[in-house]
Amino acid sequence: MKTYEIQGGFGLQHLQAAERGLPAAGPGEVLVKIKAATLNSRDIGVIEGYYHPDAQLPLIPVSDGAGEVAALGTGVSAFKLGDRVAGIFTQSWISGEPTRDNWSSTLGSPLNGMLAEYVVLPEKGLVHVPAHLSDEEAAALPCAGVTAWQAIVVEGGVKAGDTVVVQGTGGVSLFALQFAKLQGAVVIATSGSDEKLERALRLGADHGINYRRNPDWDQAVLELTDGRGADHIVDVGGSATLNRSISALRVGGRISIVGLLSGGKVEGLELVPAILRRARLQAINVGSREHFEAINRAIAASGLRPAIDRVFPFGQAPEALRHLAEGSYFGKIAIKF
Amino acid sequence: MKTYEIQGGFGLQHLQAAERGLPAAGPGEVLVKIKAATLNSRDIGVIEGYYHPDAQLPLIPVSDGAGEVAALGTGVSAFKLGDRVAGIFTQSWISGEPTRDNWSSTLGSPLNGMLAEYVVLPEKGLVHVPAHLSDEEAAALPCAGVTAWQAIVVEGGVKAGDTVVVQGTGGVSLFALQFAKLQGAVVIATSGSDEKLERALRLGADHGINYRRNPDWDQAVLELTDGRGADHIVDVGGSATLNRSISALRVGGRISIVGLLSGGKVEGLELVPAILRRARLQAINVGSREHFEAINRAIAASGLRPAIDRVFPFGQAPEALRHLAEGSYFGKIAIKF
Amino acid sequence: MKTYEIQGGFGLQHLQAAERGLPAAGPGEVLVKIKAATLNSRDIGVIEGYYHPDAQLPLIPVSDGAGEVAALGTGVSAFKLGDRVAGIFTQSWISGEPTRDNWSSTLGSPLNGMLAEYVVLPEKGLVHVPAHLSDEEAAALPCAGVTAWQAIVVEGGVKAGDTVVVQGTGGVSLFALQFAKLQGAVVIATSGSDEKLERALRLGADHGINYRRNPDWDQAVLELTDGRGADHIVDVGGSATLNRSISALRVGGRISIVGLLSGGKVEGLELVPAILRRARLQAINVGSREHFEAINRAIAASGLRPAIDRVFPFGQAPEALRHLAEGSYFGKIAIKF
Amino acid sequence: MKTYEIQGGFGLQHLQAAERGLPAAGPGEVLVKIKAATLNSRDIGVIEGYYHPDAQLPLIPVSDGAGEVAALGTGVSAFKLGDRVAGIFTQSWISGEPTRDNWSSTLGSPLNGMLAEYVVLPEKGLVHVPAHLSDEEAAALPCAGVTAWQAIVVEGGVKAGDTVVVQGTGGVSLFALQFAKLQGAVVIATSGSDEKLERALRLGADHGINYRRNPDWDQAVLELTDGRGADHIVDVGGSATLNRSISALRVGGRISIVGLLSGGKVEGLELVPAILRRARLQAINVGSREHFEAINRAIAASGLRPAIDRVFPFGQAPEALRHLAEGSYFGKIAIKF
Repeated sequence: MKTYEIQGGFGLQHLQAAERGLPAAGPGEVLVKIKAATLNSRDIGVIEGYYHPDAQLPLIPVSDGAGEVAALGTGVSAFKLGDRVAGIFTQSWISGEPTRDNWSSTLGSPLNGMLAEYVVLPEKGLVHVPAHLSDEEAAALPCAGVTAWQAIVVEGGVKAGDTVVVQGTGGVSLFALQFAKLQGAVVIATSGSDEKLERALRLGADHGINYRRNPDWDQAVLELTDGRGADHIVDVGGSATLNRSISALRVGGRISIVGLLSGGKVEGLELVPAILRRARLQAINVGSREHFEAINRAIAASGLRPAIDRVFPFGQAPEALRHLAEGSYFGKIAIKF
Repeated sequence: MKTYEIQGGFGLQHLQAAERGLPAAGPGEVLVKIKAATLNSRDIGVIEGYYHPDAQLPLIPVSDGAGEVAALGTGVSAFKLGDRVAGIFTQSWISGEPTRDNWSSTLGSPLNGMLAEYVVLPEKGLVHVPAHLSDEEAAALPCAGVTAWQAIVVEGGVKAGDTVVVQGTGGVSLFALQFAKLQGAVVIATSGSDEKLERALRLGADHGINYRRNPDWDQAVLELTDGRGADHIVDVGGSATLNRSISALRVGGRISIVGLLSGGKVEGLELVPAILRRARLQAINVGSREHFEAINRAIAASGLRPAIDRVFPFGQAPEALRHLAEGSYFGKIAIKF
Repeated sequence: MKTYEIQGGFGLQHLQAAERGLPAAGPGEVLVKIKAATLNSRDIGVIEGYYHPDAQLPLIPVSDGAGEVAALGTGVSAFKLGDRVAGIFTQSWISGEPTRDNWSSTLGSPLNGMLAEYVVLPEKGLVHVPAHLSDEEAAALPCAGVTAWQAIVVEGGVKAGDTVVVQGTGGVSLFALQFAKLQGAVVIATSGSDEKLERALRLGADHGINYRRNPDWDQAVLELTDGRGADHIVDVGGSATLNRSISALRVGGRISIVGLLSGGKVEGLELVPAILRRARLQAINVGSREHFEAINRAIAASGLRPAIDRVFPFGQAPEALRHLAEGSYFGKIAIKF
Repeated sequence: MKTYEIQGGFGLQHLQAAERGLPAAGPGEVLVKIKAATLNSRDIGVIEGYYHPDAQLPLIPVSDGAGEVAALGTGVSAFKLGDRVAGIFTQSWISGEPTRDNWSSTLGSPLNGMLAEYVVLPEKGLVHVPAHLSDEEAAALPCAGVTAWQAIVVEGGVKAGDTVVVQGTGGVSLFALQFAKLQGAVVIATSGSDEKLERALRLGADHGINYRRNPDWDQAVLELTDGRGADHIVDVGGSATLNRSISALRVGGRISIVGLLSGGKVEGLELVPAILRRARLQAINVGSREHFEAINRAIAASGLRPAIDRVFPFGQAPEALRHLAEGSYFGKIAIKF
């Protein structure tokens, strides 16, 4: 079968097409014919070698994919041939609280990922996907969808009438926008592009703030909320955004730390404003199989469709990753097999 | 000013039009010109004397009303003349957990209620109402709206993709339907009338079950949820419905006990099914000022409009109560001043 | 190996000593040499046939046991030979929310239980036990310990200064007493025997109420709490106790429904008092592996020792069950191998 | 009556003894004869003028005090003459979620504080204190006690068997130590002084780490927890401690940000370790009257006694503040009237 592997060293130039033998589904395992994959910033980090610098090569990267059940190992009862499925990001995090050990079971590093025609996963490492989604849309869920759900619903407890700020138009932010709307919130989207803000409004956002024209976007949030501040902010910027996120928050509000687009080291985090707002900063790390099943129920019930930025054919996986690295997308970048 | 009072004994025949002097707003108090009131089953209980058998007469009944600020006592800062406001049901329950003492501060008994042209309440006993609501709609919120919010959002934690069952088409049930939809849930409504089920579907319910034609409505819920059961059930029936509510519940599901339409004594509550479902039965008792402010944000953000069954003029308040007692309504019965 | 089986029909007279071949640990499985078992009311229900009337016979009953790892199947990494372990009650409930399917994996019915010299369980179906516990004490944890933890800590959220009522002196109630004390609560124990109340006080209870001499024990609870009522009540009686439990509760208090000693059908449950107290009635169904690990941390940290009523040798397992059926115990009845 | 006031400018040199007329209790107000006050770091900030740079002078500083009811305004029902009481830190935060407005009602700035022989407060701004506490001990509760409770119990949800790290031996940290023990936790205390660690162990801590001899105290925490990390860390250092607090945390653990002893600006907060631990950072801002009543129940039930470092007579209030500024205390510094 065809795959892409990181071979002989880190860096996008080492991502090479390769052939591997078809894997076999052992007891309790499922062989999945992958139909689509989608990309996350983390995939760049893995390929460039700064995410898991000691990862074993060759490695098949990319954590998120969806496909069809092609063969069943003995003892598998939850799936049948032809079922449409997606892999869960952290294969061993089934439900409840995570543990340190769970992190060694994430797809796309350290475990082989989804840039392969076929993948074998344990039964518990898969979920059914909502029927109305295309393959690319289904492949958008494992990391970005589950992360946004954790932020908005599980840790955020967002409820009708709350005000939620989502930063930028990447996969997590747009899922957060959509889930916040499903939960009845007022959503404020920020972006450096008016055109993307327009698209965010069409996706359901109530307000848009262009942080290039309006760098004091925290003040704009305060104005939009009559001085009260936002109930919940999904922070994807990290170093460049966290102080402003705190400043835009209501007393008792919550920030989900889900991304580090501008860097993971916050120079000069101001704690006094955090204390004055009794702020909660919750770092998010995707979620469990139980959370994935919860988003599937929410997506199936609502008919929600993930925002797909662009679809690349499998043979152009490196181009898809380059497009991701350029950073100018709206939603998920997909690869179709 | 004109009022209705329970005079000389309990019973609807003792509800009499009466004149009282215009009350004055003391320090920290607000005089409200009442524009509309709405009725709850509890009001019948008060008037018939089985709710507070030792209530002091004469008493102005009816807990829920809305109007306009007509005068301000000294020191009032949260309201100005002309503001549109509603009274909170439990005047002393501002936020946090309730206490036994709070129950002695409920409007419409033991405190005088809203069947009066003017009412004086402490500043903390009032909230602003959403601007898009009519007077009747605003008057629908204090008991039924806040109760449904407690059931669905505060204690229920209903989230997108959950399945919620609401029983019947009274005020609490229809607010519960609407709030559950705001939170992204799938809603199953039950009723004894196909015509009311049609209206519930138009209000947003996803499924309707006629419990007259289908007395095993719990089985119907299980079928609609592929055998999983409902995540949340708003039980308004009490004695006649609670066992079936448990039977219709998913493992780990929750029941809000908000009404006792068929009686408050459950003959033969079956605990084994409750344990098998790890059921939570949460008795609800309206809510606090903080909850009222939360529903106002949710209603303002969503443009939700409460379902009003019928509007009676002030002079026909007894007819309105009789209509309530007959039990054949869809939403709130209002009285316009 | 020696076992006891329910053979040829239900009833304690059908509990027979039997020989079975030594089971082998398959991949991911562990062979445990059982050192002690303890009994729960449920075991009587299983043996008498009213718990799972359609259970397959012959069946090895009794859910709770502890022992030593005697052999390891391939791929087992969490245990090594000689480790002291206990089985988890619901073998497939690892963490998070339970599902209907979990109930088909409970030990002692429908799965074979612990009245056997050796038992094979999947790795995930076992936990290490605290080092300071004897075999009997370790065997006391799986059902009664985890159930009490769910009631007091997980669903109860009992905190320092709360008042907790535990009913009677069975295994769950005494664990609830001990866990409530670990969490800093004031504990009121009820019993029909002054001698048992004395023992409960020695185990840490702050107050004892003899419900035979004082059938209005709910009033006694109100007096002990200056009229406020208890924050949390662990109800083990079911039909005979639930109304009084509600009456003894503070506004906003919680009742854990964990037992049905006086029957599972509550005749005349009064909902009005429940609503006036905004009572939460939470049915408890043991707990997950994650909960078992949590109690082990709590027990190891505190040095808590479960209350053991009496220890029978393996050959007198039927006598042990008869002693359980008589109902006059203080803590767990154990069987030593 | 005698008071101390900040007069004519900020700085400890401007803290002057002064005479004011005896205040009168208006409707709903209570006159309290102050018997003792205790100090918090915030009091230094107020006096030095960097806490509220625009505070109105003259101002009576110090937020925490306890005393006896000396007179009652009309309408007061919760207190009687001679009752022993303490003021609540945030006078208008009664229960539920705080709002921005609440912060303008904190004692000791912007409102006048407790360095006065008599203080008038609204009925809701007072609580009864546990009977077994001395005046100094009762005066220790309002800020440090309530803050520690919020950290450990309300936001922390600390339960039996959890591991809690408390930093240093200031008032909040020692209350956190004591409350964590009440909730059954294992407590690790850190300090730069072996002598203080000894005292922390005598107060109930299970382990002590001297961060001067062992600057990698986070590694020491990991070792003490078998590599798992602490469940909860009460961070009082701010800039110098937060990264290590994250590093010492278990996956899923929580940090309460309660102090800024080493500065409020964190240079180089590392977010990747926070995400790997799914850390929650919760900024704490004292608490409500409801929380104060909860700690009083916990303290009364347990007989807990706050740690008092040293008691100064009223006439030496400036010396007491100087002692606070030196930073070398164990528990609360008190002033006796």
